[in-house]
Parts: sequence; C-alpha cells; structure tokens
Amino acid sequence: MEPGSEVGLRVDQTLTQDATGTMVMLELEAMELDRVHTELSVQYVDHNLLQTDEKNPDDHLFLESAAQRFGLWFSKAGNGVSHPVHQAHFGRPGVIMIGSDSHTCAAGALGMLAIGVGGLEVAMAMAGQPLYVAMPEIWGVELTGQLPDWVSAKDVVLEMLRRHGVKGGAGRIIEYHGEGLAHLTAMDRHVIANMGAELGATTSIFPADDAVRQYLEAVGRGEDYTEIVADNGAEYDVTEHINLSELEPLIAKPTSPGNVIPVAEVTDEDVAQVVIGSSANPGLRDFAVVAEILDGQQAHQGVSVDINPTSREVLADLISGGWLTSLVGSGARIHQSGCLGCIGMGQAPASGRNSLRTMPRNFPGRSGTEEDSVWLCSPETASAAALTGKITDPRTLEDSHGISYPRPEMPETYSVINDMLLPPLEPEKANKVELVKGPNISALPDFEPIPDQLSAPVLLVMGDDVSTDEIMRAGSQVLPYRSNIPKIAEFSFTRIDKTYPERAHQAKDGHVVVGGDNYGQGSSREHAVIAPRYLGLQAVIAKSFARIHWQNLANFGILPLEFDDPSDYDEISQDDQMLVDDLHEALRAGRTLTATIGDREVKLNHRLSDRQVDMVLAGGRIPLTAQQSQ
Amino acid sequence: MEPGSEVGLRVDQTLTQDATGTMVMLELEAMELDRVHTELSVQYVDHNLLQTDEKNPDDHLFLESAAQRFGLWFSKAGNGVSHPVHQAHFGRPGVIMIGSDSHTCAAGALGMLAIGVGGLEVAMAMAGQPLYVAMPEIWGVELTGQLPDWVSAKDVVLEMLRRHGVKGGAGRIIEYHGEGLAHLTAMDRHVIANMGAELGATTSIFPADDAVRQYLEAVGRGEDYTEIVADNGAEYDVTEHINLSELEPLIAKPTSPGNVIPVAEVTDEDVAQVVIGSSANPGLRDFAVVAEILDGQQAHQGVSVDINPTSREVLADLISGGWLTSLVGSGARIHQSGCLGCIGMGQAPASGRNSLRTMPRNFPGRSGTEEDSVWLCSPETASAAALTGKITDPRTLEDSHGISYPRPEMPETYSVINDMLLPPLEPEKANKVELVKGPNISALPDFEPIPDQLSAPVLLVMGDDVSTDEIMRAGSQVLPYRSNIPKIAEFSFTRIDKTYPERAHQAKDGHVVVGGDNYGQGSSREHAVIAPRYLGLQAVIAKSFARIHWQNLANFGILPLEFDDPSDYDEISQDDQMLVDDLHEALRAGRTLTATIGDREVKLNHRLSDRQVDMVLAGGRIPLTAQQSQ
Repeated sequence: MEPGSEVGLRVDQTLTQDATGTMVMLELEAMELDRVHTELSVQYVDHNLLQTDEKNPDDHLFLESAAQRFGLWFSKAGNGVSHPVHQAHFGRPGVIMIGSDSHTCAAGALGMLAIGVGGLEVAMAMAGQPLYVAMPEIWGVELTGQLPDWVSAKDVVLEMLRRHGVKGGAGRIIEYHGEGLAHLTAMDRHVIANMGAELGATTSIFPADDAVRQYLEAVGRGEDYTEIVADNGAEYDVTEHINLSELEPLIAKPTSPGNVIPVAEVTDEDVAQVVIGSSANPGLRDFAVVAEILDGQQAHQGVSVDINPTSREVLADLISGGWLTSLVGSGARIHQSGCLGCIGMGQAPASGRNSLRTMPRNFPGRSGTEEDSVWLCSPETASAAALTGKITDPRTLEDSHGISYPRPEMPETYSVINDMLLPPLEPEKANKVELVKGPNISALPDFEPIPDQLSAPVLLVMGDDVSTDEIMRAGSQVLPYRSNIPKIAEFSFTRIDKTYPERAHQAKDGHVVVGGDNYGQGSSREHAVIAPRYLGLQAVIAKSFARIHWQNLANFGILPLEFDDPSDYDEISQDDQMLVDDLHEALRAGRTLTATIGDREVKLNHRLSDRQVDMVLAGGRIPLTAQQSQ
Repeated sequence: MEPGSEVGLRVDQTLTQDATGTMVMLELEAMELDRVHTELSVQYVDHNLLQTDEKNPDDHLFLESAAQRFGLWFSKAGNGVSHPVHQAHFGRPGVIMIGSDSHTCAAGALGMLAIGVGGLEVAMAMAGQPLYVAMPEIWGVELTGQLPDWVSAKDVVLEMLRRHGVKGGAGRIIEYHGEGLAHLTAMDRHVIANMGAELGATTSIFPADDAVRQYLEAVGRGEDYTEIVADNGAEYDVTEHINLSELEPLIAKPTSPGNVIPVAEVTDEDVAQVVIGSSANPGLRDFAVVAEILDGQQAHQGVSVDINPTSREVLADLISGGWLTSLVGSGARIHQSGCLGCIGMGQAPASGRNSLRTMPRNFPGRSGTEEDSVWLCSPETASAAALTGKITDPRTLEDSHGISYPRPEMPETYSVINDMLLPPLEPEKANKVELVKGPNISALPDFEPIPDQLSAPVLLVMGDDVSTDEIMRAGSQVLPYRSNIPKIAEFSFTRIDKTYPERAHQAKDGHVVVGGDNYGQGSSREHAVIAPRYLGLQAVIAKSFARIHWQNLANFGILPLEFDDPSDYDEISQDDQMLVDDLHEALRAGRTLTATIGDREVKLNHRLSDRQVDMVLAGGRIPLTAQQSQ
C-alpha cells in the first residue's frame, strides 16, 4: 500500500453509461464474455438522450440487448443520471465500484470507494479481473464550521478548486472528515465528491455516518447502512482545512473548472442562460432551492432558464412538493431527465453569451457552442442570475428582491421508482439474447502492436491541461458515433487542429503527439484513445498525464511517455520525426528510454508496470487477454 | 367571389414561427419596413428548441430583436406551440389571420379565417398588403351523432383523410356544421381544423358558437366572443356527411397522412415509441386522457413514451390536475414545450421501428430517422400501444386491462401565463433596436429574373405528392441553417437525389425540375423554394401543385407550370433540355405556352394573374415591391 505502487482492487459493482457503454459492450462481445462476474453491474442511458436521428435510439436498443445478454441491470432512457440513480438504488457503504464515467467518484458520498476509469477497465472488471491502480496518497480535508446562508456544497468543492486547480488532486484520494460534516447531507456530499474528478483526484470519500443512514432510510434501504468512519486520530499523507463558515459564493470562469473566483468579483457580466441540473448538483434540494428563490418571480427577459431534472424520481418529487409549479411559473424550460447540456446534448448557449450552469465542467466548446462562455456555480448563484440577468452574488437577493434564503424542507422519504430499472435476465434466458445492432454500430477494430523500430512524425504539439473534450469532442454531432470508431475517428483532435485527421491518414506508418502537463484531463472517454489509435497514434509524450487517460492509452496499446527533462518539450516542433530503436527491449529493461526527436536526443520515462508493458506490446489489453486465454 | 378567381383579403393578424420566421424577418429587413401594419403580429419560437450548438439560440436572439424592431409580439422559446398559444391569447371569431406555418388553419376552430402561407406572404401582409388567393370552393361537412368511447377528434379528421386523401381539400375551404358539433369542444375542433392542412385545404372553419364562448371564457377572454354561425339552409359548393357515432379508431400508416385505415386492421405491429404532443393534439385533454389511461400502469418495456407538453400553460395544468404525476409514474419522458419531434427536432425513432404519434405528418424521414416508420393516431390509440407494445385498438383496453374510457374533467379555467409573451415595443423605442445577428445569420440573397430565352436542363423528374419535406428536409441537421440560404441550399432535394445540389451547381445557367400531382404538399416552408432558387432553379413543371408551394414559387420568381396534357409527363427524362423562346411575351399573352423538352413540343399552362406575371418577371415579389416603391 505504498503510494505509487500498483495495487489490485476486487471490484464489487460497475457502472456504465451510454456514451461510454456501447464501447464497453462491444468489448465484452470481443472478449466473448458469457456473463458478468461482478456482484452488480448497471448500464445506464443518460447521456445521448436527444434523438435527432436513429443513431441514439439504435444505441439504446443495443445497450438494452447487451445488458440482457451479459447479465447487467439496465436503466432505460429517461430514468435519470447514473450517479444519483445508482446511489439511490444500489449505493452501499464499503463497496468498491468502478465506472466508465469520470464522475463515478460521486458515490464516495456514501462511503464507497468509487473510481472513474476507462471503459475497458470496466469490461475487465466485469470479466472478473481486479482493477489495477497506482496506490494513491490520502489527502485528509478537515471541514469545520457551517455553511452560511446562500452558500452550499458546490461552493465547498469550488473552494477546493480555487485552492488547488485541476491537477491538485492527481494521485490522491480526498478523504473529507471533521465536525463540519454534521451539516452536510449525503446529497451535499455527492456534490463535493462528484467534482473531485475536476481536481484530478483518484476519488473522494466521505465517512458512512448518520447522514448516510438518514439518506439510505429516505430511499427505503435503511438495511444497507453500515457505519464506516475513520479511526480517531487517523493520519493522512497530506492535510487540508476548510472552515465552512468562512466560505462565500464562488464561480468558475470560462473555460476551466479551475478558474475559480468569488462571485462578488464578476457581478457586471450579462447572463443569457442559466442551466440547472447534472450530476454535479443532482439532488432534489438543488432544484427545490432554485424553485423557492424563483417562486412567484419571473426570470429576467434576457435569460433562458433550462432545467434538467436529474431523474424521474426527482421530477416526481419536484411535482409533489409544488416546486415544479414554481419553476414553470417563473419561465423555466423543463427538459427530459438526463445529462443533456452537461455533455453538449442540448441547451447549447448562444454565441459568446454567458451561460451559468450548476454543472461540473466548462471546457471550451463542451456546451456544443464553439465560442462558448460557460461558468460553473451553485444553484443559488444560478438562480440569482436568472432573476437579474447578470452574474449576481446571491447574498444580495435579500436586499434587492426581499428573498430570504430558502431552506426547502425535504420529504421524509424520496420517491423510489423501480420500473425503469430492468433487472438482469436469468442465465438461461440471457444466453439466448441476440445483440440488436443498428446500422451505425460497428465492431471494435483490431489494432497492430507498436513496432520495435519506432519511426513516426510528431503531428501535434499541444499545451497544458488538454482535456479529453479537446481530444475527442462530445456534443450532439459526435456522440451519436460512439459505437462507430471509423466514423468518430474523423473528429479526433479537431477542436485543437482541424487538419489532424487528414495528416494522420497521410502518415501511413503511424505518428505521435506531444502534450504538456495534465494531458487528458476530464471525461473518462476511451474514444479519446481508440479514435486516434484508429488513425495511427502510437505514442503520446507529455510532461504529465491525467490518471484515467494514461490508463486508457496503455489499455489500447498507445505508449504514454513523460519527459525526463520537461524543458525538452520546448524544443519539439510539429513534423519532427521521432525515432526509437529496439523499443520493445527498452520498455522491458527499465523506466527510461532514449529517443531522437528532430535532431535531438530526448530522455523519456514510462510508468508502465511489467503487466502493462506486456499489454502495450501485445497491442492492448484485449489482444493480451486473448493471447493469455489461448 | 367566383371559385378560382383571385381575391384580396385584408389581413388582421399574422403568426410566424422560428423555422420560417427568421426568413420573414430578413425579408422585412430587405423591404426596409419600419413597423408592422397589422392589428397584431406574433413571432413564436417553438420549432428549433433543441440547442445542439449556437445556431438555434442565436436565431432566438435574432427573432426577439426583430420582433422588437418591427413591432411584433414575441413568444419566447419554451412558451409553447404557436397555434394553441395563439388561439388562447389572441384568437377571436371573425378575424382573418395568415401564418407562415401550414397549420395556421387550426385557428378555424374559433371561427377565424386562418390560412397558412409562405413567409413572404406574411411579410407582405405585415407591410400592409392584402393576401391574394384563388377564391376557394366551400365544402360543407355536416357532422351528426356523437363520438363513441375511445374515439376522439383526431379520428374525425383521419376519417376525412381516409375518404379524400392528401389532395382532397385542394382549392377548398372546409366548413364543418351540423348537430354533431354540440359535443366537440373548441380544442377538439382545433385538432380537426389543424389537419385540414393534410387534406390540402385552403383552410377549415367552424362556427363561433357556444363551445367557442366556453373556451374563450376558460382562457379569461369571454369578452372577445362573438357568435358567428352559418345561415340556416346555407348552401355549399360541395357537401359531405360524417356520422360521428359510426367512427372507429383510425390510424395513418407510413409514410403519408393519407394512408388511413382502421386501427383494428393492423394490431400485430410491434411499437417501439409513442409520442404525444404537437399542434395536432395540443389540448390539455389530449394529454390528460393519456395520463388517465396510463395512470397506475407501467408503459411496456419495449416502448419509449415521449411527451411534448404543448405549452407551459398545458404543463402547469397537467401538474395541477395530477396528470403529470401519472405520466412520470408510468415511465414517460417529459420534453420541453414545443414542436420538437413533429419537425424532427428530437425523439427520432430507432431504425425501422414503429413509432405512433399524435402528430399531423409522417412524410418519409420527417422524424429525423432516414428509414422511419411513423404512424399517426389519436392519443387514445397511442396510449393503448404504450401499454401493450403493439398497435392496439384502444376499445380493447376495457377487456384486456380493465380500463374504462376516461373522460378527464377539464378545469373551469385554464392556466393563463402572459410573462413569456413579450408585447411590442413603443415605436420610439422600437426604432432604436438593432437586429442581433449571430455568425450563422446571413441576409437574403438577390436573385436574377427568369430569362426571356429559357434554355435549361431538367435535373429531376419526380413522382406524385412530393412534399416540401422532400424538397427541403427539416430535422436537427438542417433547421439550424434556416437563416443561412447558401448553406441550407446544399440540402435541397437531397432526400430525393443526393446528387442534385452538385448537378445544379454545374448547370450554371439554371435548370428546371418536373413533378407529378400535388407537387409541394405539406409544410409552408419557403426554403423549399428559396434554396433551389439559390442553386439556379428557374421553373417547375408539374401535373398539379399544392397551394402554398405554388404561391411560394411565384413569390420568389420561379415559374410554376402545369402540363396541358398530363401524359406528356411520361415522356420527359432527366437531362432533357427545355427551351422556350420569347418567354416573357408568352407569359403576358395568355395562360398557355409551348416549350421544347428533349425533342418534343409540350404545351404548358400557367395560372399566374397579371400581377403574378409581373412578379415573376421582376425576379420575385421583393424586387417587384422595390421597383414599385421607387
């Protein structure tokens, strides 16, 4: 359990969503899996809900058939966002879960060890293999005090991002503790744990304490509660303290969740849109507080107020609590339950107009609008902007609008609707299920292993913090091709350089790309690896990598290399040729190899374990597994 | 008032929606209009609500600024579908209204003379010009009896389509009368009047009687009621009789609203989707009856139940009546208020799977799915399929599910929410408004008049009943370009022949196309004229034309010609060259001209009035108006 060493975790539960899950199911098919080995695996449909043509509904049918074939639960389109639905129906303290969605970590709210990974990791876990991770450091964050009026859980995690930026959590598990927890509900903790992904953390975790017991009782599963709290005087590798009483409303400016400043510093900006929803503020309270702020008022004429209820359960509770009436009355547009705008599937903002969102990410263009201007904030801050048409410190609403801070009373029990969660079929029925593949669904391509004599041009030299949204954009034009690698490959890196796909095709024998620090942050999408791999990407050289993307690269046989001397980065130009002789031997021999890039010798490090070296040299984890099972 | 002669109508009100309205506003700009001359003009935003990138929200901002600039009311995105919202807020017996939406005729439910026309007609009416129409025949449809359980207004208009098909109403106004009206509410009549468009009728009209008074009182405008009923013993050009008591549930098979058969004849078909909403079943009752059928039941596992509440007012009433709770509980996906799936903006069905919709149209591909299979039916028939997963005669639900036919009790007054309907600005403020044009909004191009020596190849020879959906597809890929003619032009006719745009570009000096009967049926979209015009279309030769499209062609300077001998149609092939000498003189001289097509002489007729000949020879109505005002 030494930080940095590779450890294997037994995986109890898995979570997949539709945008990544189609590929996972194709991987299960390629692996000829008969039935999942996990205690519980659930396939959700929450991302690709806009059906502008047949591709998304065809994917939904494929996923349903695959869930039935392989023994998964299936959550139908319209049932809701995976993370809160999973927490409500399946979350349990002490469980280890992985999910092919970077926000899987939200389940840390219940005292689960929940880690977002690439789809292939999830497929392997379904096949019974452990999850291998580099043992993280444990970062103890002590919370004291109590949140003031108009400040809520979102501001806690925004404060973490203000202090530490989008790389601050890399290689760490964030463990929250302290007396400040007493006033944070399980859903508040979900908000904080969710956006641990934005800090780059392996995951976040909260104790399973009275708040968790209350939550499980409210969703009718009190019997699933086990107390799990840190030992008194537990020690942490790193420590941190936040006094909740001192927090103020915060906001992340475009175009990074790390650009956090106090709302009070940017109150002159016009706002054209406010979007409430997503896994980052999914709880009933997060909508109810907006409804109570807006109740009896009309949204500002210049603002479109868009509401994505998290799930049909939240929608049902919004109706019965009277909150939906307030929202509709104030001018909100009510959208179907799901991720939608958070993943650029609808509610794209107008060009250059400010959009305030309770969502977790604002990477450039992720909203669907090329020149977007997306800010991330709490429901309270979003509501204030909805009323005034400008970015507004919600604490001023008492004076300007006579609105007292609402503390919506939550029902004793939440709505629990099981009908759209289809249980796994019995094995004898499951074996007979045929996968339903629409015309857009194509099998996973085979890939060649990396050659022993690597000779490939550098096609891109990128900066720091390149996100998977920039490597492979999401949005309504691209997401429908998630189950069609040849087609989606043509969108690889186009947000950074439109000429990349064509140049990659021209470089027939493969190519490499170069990045800065924190390369591959953001969503867990393995399409950001498979698609460029399809176009011939053989290695990525960066100053440092984001965790999930590094793992995805290795899983699909792309070599992730780090500069031994980061200043070498400055000397590399696009179209330099990279040469490495005897690459296979060098990878096995140690952690460092020497390459010629342009006319310079550059020392490069790799962090691959022996197991991972085997994997890369086999062309990826799927071919390696196939070799081993022969 | 002789049928066939051209009459001019003074226009009191206009209605534009966003998919056609951006072009209307660009036309007002091109005409340098200062302020609308109508009593009332309203710009709605109901079609392009899915915001997958910046284009649609940019259009919304443009339309809002244009409404303010030119003195229109503006209905914000999310307020609801134009026709029912207009009826609730502005409908008044005896008013003459035109709208750039083919379903404008729905307002006939209140005893209005309401006609769907091309956008330029609306722009001209706003500029104070009369609407010129060929005087229609009056078709008296006597209704007797009373609808049986499980049969509703939609089945009445489906019966009309069963009897007469999609051309049956051409050149006619359908006037409903008789004692059967006593049991049809104003919203029932709205359903019937709406789909008069599918019959090809100029419009439909109902008397303003007690049902209209009740409706106006229920929306808080009892003072706007005036009784207008036909004289006793009124005579009609054509007569028809429907005994409501004898009707049964009907359904229109793919891919035409005219393919109507009894539901009972197709009860073995699997159903994957049911969509409730649109202007064809927009009333609170139409959703409430679904809610009461589904109440306490779960939709079939294989069916996606998609609900488009018509307006936020309907949504508010669905909440307060408890109906939304039933819908959410039964598994429905609740979408934002608007047209959405009806225009291929979302909820596209899976490939080849049956989708049952309460919508007015099922032209091929209109749903957004290329190989779609869309059926049109009543809310009752749709609900039955939602429960069983198959096309099901709803009358069997009593036996199979123990469901008695629900007759939802309507509230005495409907919700009336005015906040999202922005009134016109005062002139002194309006004059100062600048049009807000996003990067995708381009001005209307200038067009050359048709030459005196026409020599052009025939680029397409098409069949009967070609719809404007086939000439210019709607859907989420194309609709966002509604304010960008050069871009949208590349989609012209691509549903019929993908090579058309390229061949049109190659035919540098212009070209013509040939159609069969009822050419240009369906939506009023003038993009189906402007876009091919931009690519060089000079004349269309057909056996016959749908009314609105014929007018749109003439308005934009494309010559609409009809075969004198329809059998000449059979002799024409693609790429034949069409030659007409002294075309201008021939048009002025009479109704017939002689063309050489291929190696044959063909006699062609035109129905242009002198005014319309001037218009075509000027290059269209906008250049003619500009010439006349100089």
